[in-house]
Amino acid sequence: MTLAAQMREMGRDARAAAAALRLASADQRSEAIRASARALRGRQQSILAANAADLVGATGLLDRLRLDEARLEAIARSLETVADLPDPVGEEMARWSRPNGLDIARVRTPIGVIGMICESRPNVTADAAAICLRSANVLILRTGSEALRSAIAIHGALAEGMAEAALPAASVQLVPVVDRDAVGMMLAGLDRAIDLIIPRGGRDLVERVTREARVPVLGHLEGLCHSYVHASADLDMAVAIVANAKMRRVSVCGATETLLVDREVAPELLPRLAAAMPDCELRGDEGARAILPMAVAEESDWSTEYLAPILAVRLVDGVGAAIGHIARYGTGHTDAIIASDAEATARFLDEVDSGIVMVNASTQFADGGEFGFGAEIGIATGRLHARGPVGPEQLTTFKYVVRGSGQIRP
Amino acid sequence: MTLAAQMREMGRDARAAAAALRLASADQRSEAIRASARALRGRQQSILAANAADLVGATGLLDRLRLDEARLEAIARSLETVADLPDPVGEEMARWSRPNGLDIARVRTPIGVIGMICESRPNVTADAAAICLRSANVLILRTGSEALRSAIAIHGALAEGMAEAALPAASVQLVPVVDRDAVGMMLAGLDRAIDLIIPRGGRDLVERVTREARVPVLGHLEGLCHSYVHASADLDMAVAIVANAKMRRVSVCGATETLLVDREVAPELLPRLAAAMPDCELRGDEGARAILPMAVAEESDWSTEYLAPILAVRLVDGVGAAIGHIARYGTGHTDAIIASDAEATARFLDEVDSGIVMVNASTQFADGGEFGFGAEIGIATGRLHARGPVGPEQLTTFKYVVRGSGQIRP
Repeated sequence: MTLAAQMREMGRDARAAAAALRLASADQRSEAIRASARALRGRQQSILAANAADLVGATGLLDRLRLDEARLEAIARSLETVADLPDPVGEEMARWSRPNGLDIARVRTPIGVIGMICESRPNVTADAAAICLRSANVLILRTGSEALRSAIAIHGALAEGMAEAALPAASVQLVPVVDRDAVGMMLAGLDRAIDLIIPRGGRDLVERVTREARVPVLGHLEGLCHSYVHASADLDMAVAIVANAKMRRVSVCGATETLLVDREVAPELLPRLAAAMPDCELRGDEGARAILPMAVAEESDWSTEYLAPILAVRLVDGVGAAIGHIARYGTGHTDAIIASDAEATARFLDEVDSGIVMVNASTQFADGGEFGFGAEIGIATGRLHARGPVGPEQLTTFKYVVRGSGQIRP
Repeated sequence: MTLAAQMREMGRDARAAAAALRLASADQRSEAIRASARALRGRQQSILAANAADLVGATGLLDRLRLDEARLEAIARSLETVADLPDPVGEEMARWSRPNGLDIARVRTPIGVIGMICESRPNVTADAAAICLRSANVLILRTGSEALRSAIAIHGALAEGMAEAALPAASVQLVPVVDRDAVGMMLAGLDRAIDLIIPRGGRDLVERVTREARVPVLGHLEGLCHSYVHASADLDMAVAIVANAKMRRVSVCGATETLLVDREVAPELLPRLAAAMPDCELRGDEGARAILPMAVAEESDWSTEYLAPILAVRLVDGVGAAIGHIARYGTGHTDAIIASDAEATARFLDEVDSGIVMVNASTQFADGGEFGFGAEIGIATGRLHARGPVGPEQLTTFKYVVRGSGQIRP
């Protein structure tokens, strides 16, 4: 069978599975997620062996790719958290009556079939499947070549979970080969089998999705996050927050990549910050380098998502300039102000038009779990349908149910 | 200036206007809408003259295109209704605290710049502008050739309203020429100036949008609505509802185009229905024609949005068959069951996966005003962001505002 025929078959199977999932109970879907967690633990050895094989050939972001016993256990626990989440499907979001007696309810429904295109994080396979099952959506996942062996091993555990809960095997499908053509077919919608594409990746993927997608897209794209230290900031707090926002984990999309500092507090802040994160390379504009020796930040640095222990540093003159920089270089992900001044804070929170805006907190809180959503499939950086962390509730749509007693429209 | 340069300039102006609209108060935007209503009344003569000129060259759906004093007054009143609606921008949709003290709010924000592509209804120009202003979005509208003179005249009144309220003229822009290339440029996003495309039109437009759009789309496409008369229906009610759903106004997207009837009640229902709407042409399947002489319904009739006094009629064997027909031929707009049986009703409402599902009511209630939204820009037939009637609230997005006191992530 050609790849094209195989992908079309996956699409048809997905459509059929979507109808079955909509009829399956919340408990049945919870049980499928729990059974998958058990299967992940039972298959620990083979999953770690597959991951080790992936690591041998890998270059680059090894921290994203690597699994160990603790991380695999964390994945299993994350599935159990999702299994325990309230089920969003069928929830009455609103209900009201009209003067003519019509009763109108807005009811949550699954989206249908989600096509996810991602790169090298093996945990995404399990997390995405659990979130889709919680929201009664079918998942078709295409992972990057670096993580393919790990993904196949994890998908085996998920298939075991589906079988135990008597859900269709096609509820969670993994594209079993790495082929750029498969991505193109998914972006074209697999003959209307895919309702929504979720891409998670870098610029190349962004551009390809923008160019080729024929179905709606929930972009999970770059996180070029900013932390801005206003002149009114408590500098102890600022040092602690920025060091955490940059260095807690450098490979996550919520990591701060650019620090903006009000010129007047930079002489005190920058040396203390450098001391607090000695392993971080600083790249500064002229003003920052006049305070502290550091590498030169080129124009391209302001728009680079390092995902590494590197921080671009720019001095600014006040909140307006900070907002302007973020409007120009930001990706609409997460941006924070550290300040005590109420007016500057209010202006920043109001005018910075990102999915998440923060005051006096680390941008690394950009995370579905930290928001209380239980889990996330990523952080949406577009403007439609959902922004910020995408959990099960964000993977639903709704319909209006109108109950009448014979009303006709005048 | 070439059309391309002109369109790019419209996009740049729109971006600047979007920033200004976000900072404008709710009252200022209300005043712009009210001033537009006043200007519409003041310019009644010239608008009706422009519409008369449009009608001279027009063919086809004249009822959609025609304006008269009463319709123009209705448009002005509709603007005033929108001006009085609660403003959605800045609304706190949800707010909660996390165990670590982080305070998280989900706050409504405008989408930004809306590009609307529509055909021949002149009222759309005013309604869309009012809804966009109420939600602090900029509108770039491209209307069909048949309604262009009317749209230009109405846009003149809107421009007067913007000026009176001191909002940028670019807050509401009309593409001043009819050129297919203009549509292509809008679908490409005008250099990232457009955040959302709203198409309203028939199949050709649907297909073009699907093929060419590089920005998110909120589809306002075909309304192939079904009314299904279940065997348990009160037949007096069924006749009244179906006649209204078909004939009240045949050119609206919520008009029923296909009637499905349970075989056992068809012999009683069909003659009574035919008597109740003598001006409607019936096209039936074999079973229907055995009961009543009528034209033959071809396969293509099941997927034709007539927008005319024609009704396709098919006999079915129970609610499952009705659901199956709708799944195959429907467009996800509005579908109704007329029934008294609770089980059949529940199954229909649950399994028909359209934006609006109804029981014992006319599909012509598919309308933002009838839903209590004040006004609508159309009925969304896609699955993402919003379904059903799209009013000001549906033209918003949100951001998360996270307030901390120095939290760092462990």
